Amino acid sequence: MEALGNRSLDWIDDAVVMVDQTQLPSRYVTLRIEAPEEMVAAIQRLSVRGAPALGVAGAMGVVLAVQRYGTSGQKLEQAVSTLRTARPTAVNLARMVERTARLIDQGLPAVRAEALSIRDEEIAASRQMGARGADYLTQRLGAKPLRVMTICNTGGLATVELGTALAVIQTLHTRQLLKEALVMETRPLLQGARLTTWELAKAEAPHRLLVDAAGPFWLASQPVDAVLAGADRVTANGDVANKIGTFSLALGAQYARVPFMVVAPESTIDMNTPTGADITIEERDPAEVTGWRGVETAPAGTPVANPAFDLTPVDLIDSLITDQRVVRFGSGEKLAP
Amino acid sequence: MEALGNRSLDWIDDAVVMVDQTQLPSRYVTLRIEAPEEMVAAIQRLSVRGAPALGVAGAMGVVLAVQRYGTSGQKLEQAVSTLRTARPTAVNLARMVERTARLIDQGLPAVRAEALSIRDEEIAASRQMGARGADYLTQRLGAKPLRVMTICNTGGLATVELGTALAVIQTLHTRQLLKEALVMETRPLLQGARLTTWELAKAEAPHRLLVDAAGPFWLASQPVDAVLAGADRVTANGDVANKIGTFSLALGAQYARVPFMVVAPESTIDMNTPTGADITIEERDPAEVTGWRGVETAPAGTPVANPAFDLTPVDLIDSLITDQRVVRFGSGEKLAP
Repeated sequence: MEALGNRSLDWIDDAVVMVDQTQLPSRYVTLRIEAPEEMVAAIQRLSVRGAPALGVAGAMGVVLAVQRYGTSGQKLEQAVSTLRTARPTAVNLARMVERTARLIDQGLPAVRAEALSIRDEEIAASRQMGARGADYLTQRLGAKPLRVMTICNTGGLATVELGTALAVIQTLHTRQLLKEALVMETRPLLQGARLTTWELAKAEAPHRLLVDAAGPFWLASQPVDAVLAGADRVTANGDVANKIGTFSLALGAQYARVPFMVVAPESTIDMNTPTGADITIEERDPAEVTGWRGVETAPAGTPVANPAFDLTPVDLIDSLITDQRVVRFGSGEKLAP
Repeated sequence: MEALGNRSLDWIDDAVVMVDQTQLPSRYVTLRIEAPEEMVAAIQRLSVRGAPALGVAGAMGVVLAVQRYGTSGQKLEQAVSTLRTARPTAVNLARMVERTARLIDQGLPAVRAEALSIRDEEIAASRQMGARGADYLTQRLGAKPLRVMTICNTGGLATVELGTALAVIQTLHTRQLLKEALVMETRPLLQGARLTTWELAKAEAPHRLLVDAAGPFWLASQPVDAVLAGADRVTANGDVANKIGTFSLALGAQYARVPFMVVAPESTIDMNTPTGADITIEERDPAEVTGWRGVETAPAGTPVANPAFDLTPVDLIDSLITDQRVVRFGSGEKLAP
């Protein structure tokens, strides 16, 4: 096993090494990825996932493409283009592939340096989100241990280290200000049940797991101080595309008058997309819904709709916490003046 | 295999025969239940489930108790009391156990006749709900094929035949007025994914399966004509206890301005319970959430909250359709004058 430490992926000896998140929590296995086509496959089967981690994976995929195919030609172009569109929703993937690819003319060392910069920026952004978010929650809700609800996995596995929403939760825990994290299991691929619980247990942070359908009712009937979600893309007006189920929690939070907050790096904000209505929602394989690791959950051949993301309109979002600022949508603030 | 026909359970040769719903859709297996203790176990592991079916199972359980222990004594009393409280949320179970037990002094034939009456009443109620609900939807929404969303299993498996909400959906289909049923999978036990899809496929009714977290966003972003849910208990003010996730759909329906309707027999209305706040919500085994048929879905030992039901306040409910009437809560109508 390669030495990734706390990182979910890294650049080691001319290749990308990543935790295979499809195997967690049963097994901690790392993959060594040497070709851009392997990276596309890893992205599509969700061995690597989470908007910031996808940005880093895409950038490092471009380095692999240049290593393999040189700095020009049809094979290189094909590889870069396939990387850029391997998944449609997270803006980071396309954006970081493009940012890295812009340096291809300058040669492999420049491309590699850019990918490593992107990695380091994401690590720094996670730390800043964790600290800024914990400060902000304390300021808004008081310096007392908080109960927070979260969905999907927004931890170190979704970034490179620490995370977005889960960075805030882990920072609260470090400051002894976390009473409990309530983790939505996040069907169909159970990123909450498999990955967030795994990260919280590792950090010895108090938590409980709930089925997704229990979230809104829990908000309406039990004490919760805030809902913290990540984002795959934040549009210019403040709408948020995130894992399916985020919208339900935002509705439940509105009903229960619990602040619903989004934590995402500036790299996830897409000022070129005006509103959530302009985002393509990824529709994934029906098999994700009709079975779980080879065990049938529905009759074979059952027709399925499997939207992987939803859109939460800005009017349901109290605040956006980034690595550089807090935007209080609920108080009328906007992303751009 | 016993000849149950379209029934989920029945009284055959001095015993209860029931479909073992825990094995669907992989296998259609029937159980022969001869002792009241076996009935309690079948109820608790959800081999039989659904408020109306639980009422019939409880009544037949009392017949089994009298067959085994006679018409008096501590063993009989213990058996009846355990049946009555085998599950807490559905009012039908306690109510029908009590109704049948009231006749114990008159001897076994009277007790058996009462249980068979309860069975026949539930079958008749299902047919009436199906017809009344289909009439009402056509009147409210127009004589056109409808898209309806539903949760859990409210079909023949939840009653004796046909169902409650799913009786309406199946009646619409028979009348060629069903465009599509959207079925929520209903974690943790997947009654929607396993049972409702199985019943709809058997009826050749068009349907698609969605994860629970997708329901509210689907309502907000796709055309749906109505949400139809069953009920485990309807309280005097019109609040509804039903499978966890019902409240989320009601919130989503309100947001999307889609009518949210509850379909339940009069036997599920509990005028002795003033409001939803007076109902005990069953908290079930964490293992239901952390694994699926022996396959781990979360790290071993993960702490879980597993409320099996939620409460939907009457102000989110457009109408209640019973076997005898339609109560339009959304227009200010009430259960009792």
